[in-house]
Amino acid sequence: MAENRKRKFWGWGYEDQGPTPEQQRHMAERMAKRFGLGPLEISPPPKESDLNLRAPRVKPPAALEAICTTAVHERAGHTYGKGSRDIRRAFRRDYPNPIDVVAFPRDEKELIRTLEWCDGANIAAVPYGGGSSVVGGVEPPEGDRYRGAVSIDLMHLDKVVEVDKVSRAARIQAGVYGPALDAQLKAHGLTIRHFPQSFEFSTLGGWIATRSGGHFATLYTHIDDFVESLRVVTPTGIVESRRLPGSGAGPSPDRMFIGSEGILGVITEAWMRLQDRPTFRAGASVPFPSMFKAADAVRQISQAGIYPANCRVLDEGEAFNSGAGNGDEAVLVLAFESADHPLEPWMKRALECCADHGGKIPADAAKTRTDAEATHEGSAGAWRNAFLNAPYLMDTVAAMGMVSDTFETSITWERFPDFHRQMMEAARDVIARVCGKGTVTCRFTHVYPDGPAPYYTILAPGKRGSELEQWDEIKAAVSDKLIALGGTITHHHAVGRYHRPWYDRQRPDGFALALKAAKKALDPRSILNPGVLIDPD
Amino acid sequence: MAENRKRKFWGWGYEDQGPTPEQQRHMAERMAKRFGLGPLEISPPPKESDLNLRAPRVKPPAALEAICTTAVHERAGHTYGKGSRDIRRAFRRDYPNPIDVVAFPRDEKELIRTLEWCDGANIAAVPYGGGSSVVGGVEPPEGDRYRGAVSIDLMHLDKVVEVDKVSRAARIQAGVYGPALDAQLKAHGLTIRHFPQSFEFSTLGGWIATRSGGHFATLYTHIDDFVESLRVVTPTGIVESRRLPGSGAGPSPDRMFIGSEGILGVITEAWMRLQDRPTFRAGASVPFPSMFKAADAVRQISQAGIYPANCRVLDEGEAFNSGAGNGDEAVLVLAFESADHPLEPWMKRALECCADHGGKIPADAAKTRTDAEATHEGSAGAWRNAFLNAPYLMDTVAAMGMVSDTFETSITWERFPDFHRQMMEAARDVIARVCGKGTVTCRFTHVYPDGPAPYYTILAPGKRGSELEQWDEIKAAVSDKLIALGGTITHHHAVGRYHRPWYDRQRPDGFALALKAAKKALDPRSILNPGVLIDPD
Repeated sequence: MAENRKRKFWGWGYEDQGPTPEQQRHMAERMAKRFGLGPLEISPPPKESDLNLRAPRVKPPAALEAICTTAVHERAGHTYGKGSRDIRRAFRRDYPNPIDVVAFPRDEKELIRTLEWCDGANIAAVPYGGGSSVVGGVEPPEGDRYRGAVSIDLMHLDKVVEVDKVSRAARIQAGVYGPALDAQLKAHGLTIRHFPQSFEFSTLGGWIATRSGGHFATLYTHIDDFVESLRVVTPTGIVESRRLPGSGAGPSPDRMFIGSEGILGVITEAWMRLQDRPTFRAGASVPFPSMFKAADAVRQISQAGIYPANCRVLDEGEAFNSGAGNGDEAVLVLAFESADHPLEPWMKRALECCADHGGKIPADAAKTRTDAEATHEGSAGAWRNAFLNAPYLMDTVAAMGMVSDTFETSITWERFPDFHRQMMEAARDVIARVCGKGTVTCRFTHVYPDGPAPYYTILAPGKRGSELEQWDEIKAAVSDKLIALGGTITHHHAVGRYHRPWYDRQRPDGFALALKAAKKALDPRSILNPGVLIDPD
Repeated sequence: MAENRKRKFWGWGYEDQGPTPEQQRHMAERMAKRFGLGPLEISPPPKESDLNLRAPRVKPPAALEAICTTAVHERAGHTYGKGSRDIRRAFRRDYPNPIDVVAFPRDEKELIRTLEWCDGANIAAVPYGGGSSVVGGVEPPEGDRYRGAVSIDLMHLDKVVEVDKVSRAARIQAGVYGPALDAQLKAHGLTIRHFPQSFEFSTLGGWIATRSGGHFATLYTHIDDFVESLRVVTPTGIVESRRLPGSGAGPSPDRMFIGSEGILGVITEAWMRLQDRPTFRAGASVPFPSMFKAADAVRQISQAGIYPANCRVLDEGEAFNSGAGNGDEAVLVLAFESADHPLEPWMKRALECCADHGGKIPADAAKTRTDAEATHEGSAGAWRNAFLNAPYLMDTVAAMGMVSDTFETSITWERFPDFHRQMMEAARDVIARVCGKGTVTCRFTHVYPDGPAPYYTILAPGKRGSELEQWDEIKAAVSDKLIALGGTITHHHAVGRYHRPWYDRQRPDGFALALKAAKKALDPRSILNPGVLIDPD
């Protein structure tokens, strides 16, 4: 993250970025036309001076003053994540329970001292990476169980500390943002090859704490498998695992912290498994007569042992919206990449699978391009641009009063067709009931030999002032449905506070008991991100 | 497991199996010649009538009598695993702390009642799969903390309950032995494709509880990634996770139980990810001028994204002993397999990596064979036969007074050369000191992009009556060394009781605290396999 530029406290990215007023008006006109609405007014975003934050309830000790701030911009910016509920509340100037103090430890020692302060003074400590949570993962707890809440922002722990080119691994501080990480690795010819949509404003530690889903659509989908070892600061001490390519010595210590969302400790460093920068690429966009036909092809590909880097199905609506399809066809965005070998045999086999299920194979699709030739062209390129720009546009879509958000899950293949039909029906029903009209579209973000991870996008005209409640109603209906049908409440967006009601139905009770006990052992006074994943005692 | 055949209570396999007396004499002659020893007497194995087991300290309640036994054969057979220490103690007729009762629950309800009995009566409950532990994982605890010890043998939970061909998964009871499992899956054209050396006498539940290492040398090395969901009976209730292809909802519940070695609960069922039965194969044995050259080639292969099914380096001694090499060369046993596509491009690329590092490529090696043609020929076949027969021969090697056992670990590539030199030197030193002479050899069982899993075999003439203490001294020296050099005390043999001193140095203290707390939550009276992985309170 560039330290000389100011982040929006209320939305995605830098203050000087995002669509211009003219672009916003253009977007609003298109949106109004699409849904047959009258002119859509674009609400102005909040300014710091609009806010009247509660005075900080706690004051850092003198020794920590230099790394702490109570500036309104920082307190407001660290109170919410970047989901639609967060932007919506920001537009309402609604900050009833702000973070009291933001701490920016410059090293592990200062982090330990910050935790000691919180632990001794009964203050909730919220670990903060890039703040891109869409599930309320960085919000302070409500109520008076704690004297206050401190957000611990790890942005200064931003270095690649050690590189092992032979094993293709590096020891990396957890607070580094995606682009800065890849820039540091590039000097060594390596790459993390993990690009969640939040890449620009999320951190390594955040990815690990939330089991983020990244670049690879198959095989290395989540960050989990890239973690070689971890270093975690807890209120009871430092937990550090060994660098091991593989081990069978008891349950994996790393897997306990991967996905722990800051409730067990603060991840400060990790040895990460890296990739060589790819030099060979092969890609194609393959239209299919339907989402289900495309799913059949993708199932075959995912069970063939050929592991494409990209294997994302866009349904008819999603393909159309992103410029990758004509609206009547689903599109499979397929790509292989390698730093080692040309990809014709892999691509050829994947295209055979597509042809088996009615995919229209583009001419010359199986050709490997080397890095110099490989630009992101065609519908694959259109989709990718839309993917990376989406967070920047969300603020504007919210500002024009649309109800717009996503939900995502995974399900085994044999249940997928019925699951998908029922999810689409449930989404359409609740959209019609709550908003009168609107759309739901679907894509696969990741696929496995035993099933896909479908990702649903909802867009509907909201009622001014009620958009948040409208979304909550839609979200509850689709979440109830997907939990009843056997899905997961999240494939890669984490649990946080927002997913808790459904996570509580999903996770086995015995596991929650065990997790709670583990937390108590590491964080006896329950100061770490209380309320996320499990309730504090 | 065939129920009409009797297992040896003291060693590997069935009573009517293993080398004949004549074959044993022949083995002893070859061994004596190899190490320049006088004639090696072959000690007779123990008979039930040799044993004078302590009377059972506990008696099952009437309701459980029908599924419990106190027969000497079963009690002795369930007291030890199948490591060299176990066979050695059996040959000494040394059973000072036997299992008191063996329970054979026929269903989950009977298992629950058995656990209730143990929980209420302060009896240690030892979950028992195939009993192939080589680390003391199925032994009862010593001392008087518990009134007795019950071995809970799951052999009757031996069915594939449900098959989902579309997602290639099946719900399987945990007590099923390897061959019975694959026979049941074969009817559906599927296979577990996980063949640890113990395959014939180990169970699905045992594999999961110990994170066993299987067939695939790359990618799907441990059983972990094949687990889609688990069902576990604990003293505080049943824990069951959802069938999900992937999830990011908190730390993985399954990963807490995978590798828990029976201390958190008894695994009764799992949905497992399966494979289609391979129909294409390509294999070659590639000689290299040295182990280190072969390692360089294997590193390149493991980082190339081509994922061979077999990629096992045998050092000079190991290759010679298994008939795969001439004693001057290391040998890489390389194989690809697929149910989907011919394998020439994969094999060709792997062989290029071999050639880059001085491997001698056999003529015609890159040819894919289809299933009908694919027999296990040449040095790869010789090695495989030796691999599968090894457990049968171990009894005889012990009976002739040899000190013979293995240790295994993993290490990152950049440390491997120095690590391996130091490990070989440490092993040779301690063998010379303790046994006067002997050999240590090495192979890679599994390889990862960031490092190999080296597996060391020690063979040395023992001093009659002291072989166990001699091995303990050797084991302690090499374990101290590998822990000091950054390895893991086990890559796929588990921790049990035997590896505890080194595991305790390896695992982070904070993780042990958390694991202990998790255990207390699920098993409040600490009856489950106490002393394994962590101490009971």
